[in-house]
Amino acid sequence: MNDLVRLGRDEAETFAAGLLAAHGVPEDDARIAARCLVRADLRGVDTHGIVRMPIYLERLEKGLVTPAPRLSANRVAPAAAHLDGQNGLGFVVATRAVEEAIAIARDNGVGFVGVSNSTHFGMAACYLLQALEAGYGALVFTNASRAMPPWGGRTELLGTSPFGAAFPNPGGTPFLLDMAPSVAARGKIRKAQREGKPIPEGYALDEHGRPTTDPEAALRGVVLPIGGPKGAAISMLMDIVGGVLTGAAFAGNVGNQYQDFDRPQNVGHAAIVFRPDLFMPAQVVAERMKELVATVKAAPKAEGFDEILMPGEPEARNEARRLEEGIPYRLDDLAPLVEIARARGVAVPAAATR
Amino acid sequence: MNDLVRLGRDEAETFAAGLLAAHGVPEDDARIAARCLVRADLRGVDTHGIVRMPIYLERLEKGLVTPAPRLSANRVAPAAAHLDGQNGLGFVVATRAVEEAIAIARDNGVGFVGVSNSTHFGMAACYLLQALEAGYGALVFTNASRAMPPWGGRTELLGTSPFGAAFPNPGGTPFLLDMAPSVAARGKIRKAQREGKPIPEGYALDEHGRPTTDPEAALRGVVLPIGGPKGAAISMLMDIVGGVLTGAAFAGNVGNQYQDFDRPQNVGHAAIVFRPDLFMPAQVVAERMKELVATVKAAPKAEGFDEILMPGEPEARNEARRLEEGIPYRLDDLAPLVEIARARGVAVPAAATR
Repeated sequence: MNDLVRLGRDEAETFAAGLLAAHGVPEDDARIAARCLVRADLRGVDTHGIVRMPIYLERLEKGLVTPAPRLSANRVAPAAAHLDGQNGLGFVVATRAVEEAIAIARDNGVGFVGVSNSTHFGMAACYLLQALEAGYGALVFTNASRAMPPWGGRTELLGTSPFGAAFPNPGGTPFLLDMAPSVAARGKIRKAQREGKPIPEGYALDEHGRPTTDPEAALRGVVLPIGGPKGAAISMLMDIVGGVLTGAAFAGNVGNQYQDFDRPQNVGHAAIVFRPDLFMPAQVVAERMKELVATVKAAPKAEGFDEILMPGEPEARNEARRLEEGIPYRLDDLAPLVEIARARGVAVPAAATR
Repeated sequence: MNDLVRLGRDEAETFAAGLLAAHGVPEDDARIAARCLVRADLRGVDTHGIVRMPIYLERLEKGLVTPAPRLSANRVAPAAAHLDGQNGLGFVVATRAVEEAIAIARDNGVGFVGVSNSTHFGMAACYLLQALEAGYGALVFTNASRAMPPWGGRTELLGTSPFGAAFPNPGGTPFLLDMAPSVAARGKIRKAQREGKPIPEGYALDEHGRPTTDPEAALRGVVLPIGGPKGAAISMLMDIVGGVLTGAAFAGNVGNQYQDFDRPQNVGHAAIVFRPDLFMPAQVVAERMKELVATVKAAPKAEGFDEILMPGEPEARNEARRLEEGIPYRLDDLAPLVEIARARGVAVPAAATR
């Protein structure tokens, strides 16, 4: 049952959207969420792809995620808007927020949108790509459930919330940073757990505050920040901008979607979107960005490196390849989705039942 | 001559401002720059304090820093402005930029200011504190001369430019992050060299791009970013937002103030300032921030920690203590300033010639 099968993008998206629609999500919203999920799979960020869907579907079914929120951004200042996510799918809520931030930036140069009452939004790169594809630069913030201690602490309090930043490079590889402030995301540890593999040292402490390479022990303990106090501070920044500022939960009170079934998560996000041609003509900025990328790529290589890649470029290459070859999934990982699909009368891709 | 002397804040500021004024800097601007320099000393960020002044004065004298730029921000969009720094002192230029960003944020919710043709601006926290003291949240970007390779490179290309972020906490300790994306400053490696000690693995590469624990080899090579590709990407983000976007130099072309005497530095900065009460009433946000800080401080402590400090709190404590006790300086470090002061007829604090 560990066989790999390949699904095409459209096939995977239709499957994912069908599952969401079968749980009451309107077709357009289901398609938005499915695109984010499948895009994570395309980019090799498998931890944020469709195999994570059972928890979203379960929370939809339990009423902890609102299937059909009526999202309406509230312009609170000329260049800032607030969006109450109404506990909708984070994919849909965050996509709506970035859409609003782009619209504000178009008119004002920069747009700041804060979001409360959202839920897990998956891969932050999804929203950075949304801004890039509209031709904008962006910073994306989110907070998350407890996963990492503050610097000097030993228990989970802050999230391993990704900090995201992007800047377009028309015709070339854009800058796309989507980084957890932890040495490794919990998703990677969960993947190691599923696959029965150890994790590298330095990723996590166990529940007693001791280093561990056992993913089970690590999931009971805490993941460690990059750069010591620096990574911990980035995580706190996510909780402040994503949570304290926006009106979402914060300080360890964001619900864990795998554990807290008594309430919605109340995740918070924020997006700052800006025009790349604010200070110089678009063509000039594009040439400058092209020059930066060329200079970086031409730099002398360190031992073990054949080439230098831009942040986000490994994922962009995965995406190009998987669009051609199809997305590899383990049948084991698809099985829970197939089961749900059958129970709900959702069409299952033929390859997924091979 | 390694004796420590103590100067009061006002004494140090007046001395620093006098030196700048003697090099043609108008009194108000000299006072702004002196405050930033002395504030670094107050906060224990001695590497960015007044002992660094000889290079600023030398560049002023050589015409590579403009003593009296006529700074005028250009509103390029309703919520964004550009500032041509005219090669003025980075302290003065960045202070003016943040002032403008605050004014824009007051009216628009958020303000984005990009700066070209600036010079080294010292401690990023100076500008974060400026926003905090006006009651605003802020993100501050700057690029810098070559100091660190891109991920996969072995030679200096990007800067160890600080990423700065701040959020107010009225009546308590604000959030203030001012972090270099490198694991360790070269100063730490120099110290290990002086003491004949190895450096930890992960600090640096040698000149051939191989990991090294030998400080001699490391000083011929490059310092490494925190979190591998993550820190390198943060450094690139600084070069994009600070440089590519603003019209300043970028891609390794920012002048090194210690080495490049054929041209101004053309450093770039950017500031994003936002109202903390965008989405909730100010009083509510203040209470939420107080709750976050209290929760963080109450977290169970890791081994070796008696208490948990907010990002920026160690420096705030230094500042409070040094305001009381005076700022300690080594006479050796002050000597070059005393010499310049005497040559220019600038009054020297009595303690500095003890």
